[in-house]
Amino acid sequence: ASVFRIVILPGDGIGPEVVTEAARVLEAVTAALPDVDLKLETYDFGGCSIDKFGEPLTEATLEACKSADAILMGAIGGPKWGVNSKVRPEQGLLALRKALGLYANIRPANFASDSLLNYSPLKPHIAQGVDMIVIRELIGGAYFGTRKELGASPQEDTAWDTMIYSVPEVQRITRVAAQVALAANPPLPIHSIDKANVLASSRLWRKVVIETLEEEFPQLKLDHHLVDSASMLIVSNPKKLNGVILTENLFGDILSDESSVIPGSLGLLPSASLAGAPSVADYKSADFKATPGLYEPIHGSAPDIAGQGIANPVGTILSAAMLLRYSLGLEKPAKAIEDAVRKVLDDTEKGGAGYRTADLAGQHKTKDVGDKVIEILKTL
Amino acid sequence: ASVFRIVILPGDGIGPEVVTEAARVLEAVTAALPDVDLKLETYDFGGCSIDKFGEPLTEATLEACKSADAILMGAIGGPKWGVNSKVRPEQGLLALRKALGLYANIRPANFASDSLLNYSPLKPHIAQGVDMIVIRELIGGAYFGTRKELGASPQEDTAWDTMIYSVPEVQRITRVAAQVALAANPPLPIHSIDKANVLASSRLWRKVVIETLEEEFPQLKLDHHLVDSASMLIVSNPKKLNGVILTENLFGDILSDESSVIPGSLGLLPSASLAGAPSVADYKSADFKATPGLYEPIHGSAPDIAGQGIANPVGTILSAAMLLRYSLGLEKPAKAIEDAVRKVLDDTEKGGAGYRTADLAGQHKTKDVGDKVIEILKTL
Ligand SMILES: CC(C)[C@H](C(=O)O)[C@@H](O)C(=O)O
Ligand SMILES: CC(C)[C@H](C(=O)O)[C@@H](O)C(=O)O
Repeated sequence: ASVFRIVILPGDGIGPEVVTEAARVLEAVTAALPDVDLKLETYDFGGCSIDKFGEPLTEATLEACKSADAILMGAIGGPKWGVNSKVRPEQGLLALRKALGLYANIRPANFASDSLLNYSPLKPHIAQGVDMIVIRELIGGAYFGTRKELGASPQEDTAWDTMIYSVPEVQRITRVAAQVALAANPPLPIHSIDKANVLASSRLWRKVVIETLEEEFPQLKLDHHLVDSASMLIVSNPKKLNGVILTENLFGDILSDESSVIPGSLGLLPSASLAGAPSVADYKSADFKATPGLYEPIHGSAPDIAGQGIANPVGTILSAAMLLRYSLGLEKPAKAIEDAVRKVLDDTEKGGAGYRTADLAGQHKTKDVGDKVIEILKTL
Repeated sequence: ASVFRIVILPGDGIGPEVVTEAARVLEAVTAALPDVDLKLETYDFGGCSIDKFGEPLTEATLEACKSADAILMGAIGGPKWGVNSKVRPEQGLLALRKALGLYANIRPANFASDSLLNYSPLKPHIAQGVDMIVIRELIGGAYFGTRKELGASPQEDTAWDTMIYSVPEVQRITRVAAQVALAANPPLPIHSIDKANVLASSRLWRKVVIETLEEEFPQLKLDHHLVDSASMLIVSNPKKLNGVILTENLFGDILSDESSVIPGSLGLLPSASLAGAPSVADYKSADFKATPGLYEPIHGSAPDIAGQGIANPVGTILSAAMLLRYSLGLEKPAKAIEDAVRKVLDDTEKGGAGYRTADLAGQHKTKDVGDKVIEILKTL
């Protein structure tokens, strides 16, 4: 049997609650697979780690993550470790991304079920059918370029950051976008987003995206949007961006969050951060090796509802599905989880008891949703 | 009588059509004022200037703009001078902003009339009552920092831009935001947007905004949002950002465009770019001097509908109102134009003939809307 080591980072706030359900789902879905053996290990990370050890990411947690096949995270942060604290949970997240080389952030924004259109801020005819996958470069650009803080003396009255990209950095993220586009049938179009009419880093970005796709993936459709124009389209006509949205770190931060509110609840959406993207051929090969990856729901730690057992675990459960797909190459159980989640969400529409949490006007608890997903998985 | 010199830059595509109507409105509204004398002068700018002179902003146009009291622009650009051309219309716009020191871009996003809620991509209960004014720093940040293009040799395989701000740059734009907030009664809250959890330039931004407001405008309400979170709120619950949104150049580019699609048609919205903001006291003082400013609708040159006389002139007409308000200190005729526009747009709802252009599912021509605004102005 293949043994996979999964590190669990529950984190802060509702993190532990949602991760518990996703871990149960992971165990349930793999229990049925005779040749797959998951070992789950839990580590401190984020605010809770600051409280215990004075730092968000300890050496022990980092080492565990480095040697793991994949990482499942809940959420980190909270008012206790706010913007004015010297040590903040996000620093741990940025350091972990960098240390593991997780350069590819993958964030789908779509409706698990049309019955959720009610919760979208967009009118139904605009929201229905939205199906975007934002692929954000995660360890380059202004996040990791040289920077200078405001100085103490009046002479040093500027502060700056460098938005910097190299050719290989853009090549590799473009290849990830291509693999994700090719995994769909027919392949998805790629929409590359930049600000090439102003920024040098964006001109490099555009040039390298064009060249890489032309040379290596000439079968894929590609177009380009300026970031300001893309931010309008996501609201006014998001279906025009259906497919893969490929962009740099800072633009991806903004646009992935913007698109994530379309499906109505942040509690629904998963994410993956990868150190590469295996191709479909890789998955099929006999000597497939796990691609390291960090999986987390896109929502925050929601301290206001923490400890009540009412958080929506769907985003984390779908993150677990992405973990199976991208890191372990287990497409079938990944798909099974996604189908089960769709059934659980649709249940209310069919006159069933309904398994939705409070963010979707439901009465159900975090654990009820986990239970129901596991129950349905058994029948699939 | 005060004589004001207004430079008109019709530009490309639908620019000349919409600017014609706004200029007529300006003349009509000031004809009634015995002590105000407007001199309108038209100059080449943008793509049409590239075609004639090889450059988007000639010395003659620049000099005229420098000595003018205010500038009214249509729109520039088009596929003829696309992203791959060496000389592009936008270069002229960036150069003009910089040369005139137009550091404060002001862009309201609101519903001129509730009858327009139909055209919003957002659900009515989310869109109704949205009333934001984005104040974007316009000549700093990554737009004007040092940059390096991708080199020709393999050793030079990076490109970068510098997001840089100085303390005085942030102070002055904060003061403009404060003046705009104070012009309303009660004063508007200020929402400052940054990415202070990652960027040094954003930490400077946040510190200076806080200090400037605390010291100079302690009566104003201030809060802070991270740019990713703000981009979500603009879609999911934009009224939370009602008031003044204060942000740096690149974030402002993205967020102002994002918010501008809420009112349903880009054709409706005006903008002002100022070299300062007079306070209410300034306007009232006897020796008020014009504040240089460039006024333009937020829409582009729309080459697809150019020459047909069907473009919506409302955004440009409202830009002319902002010109009267901010550059000439003429609040009353500015308000009169805004009221007249509201009446023209509302007309359809009252069973009247209706004066809406095709972007609002209307049958009326650019000129019809201009005529109607002028007709109503005469009755006010
Ligand atoms: C917490 C923060 C540093 C982080 C980012 O900006 O990358 C977050 O917003 C995200 O998108 O994961
Ligand atoms: C044309 C372009 C350079 C410009 C900008 O990015 O500032 C435009 O998008 C705007 O917002 O006025």
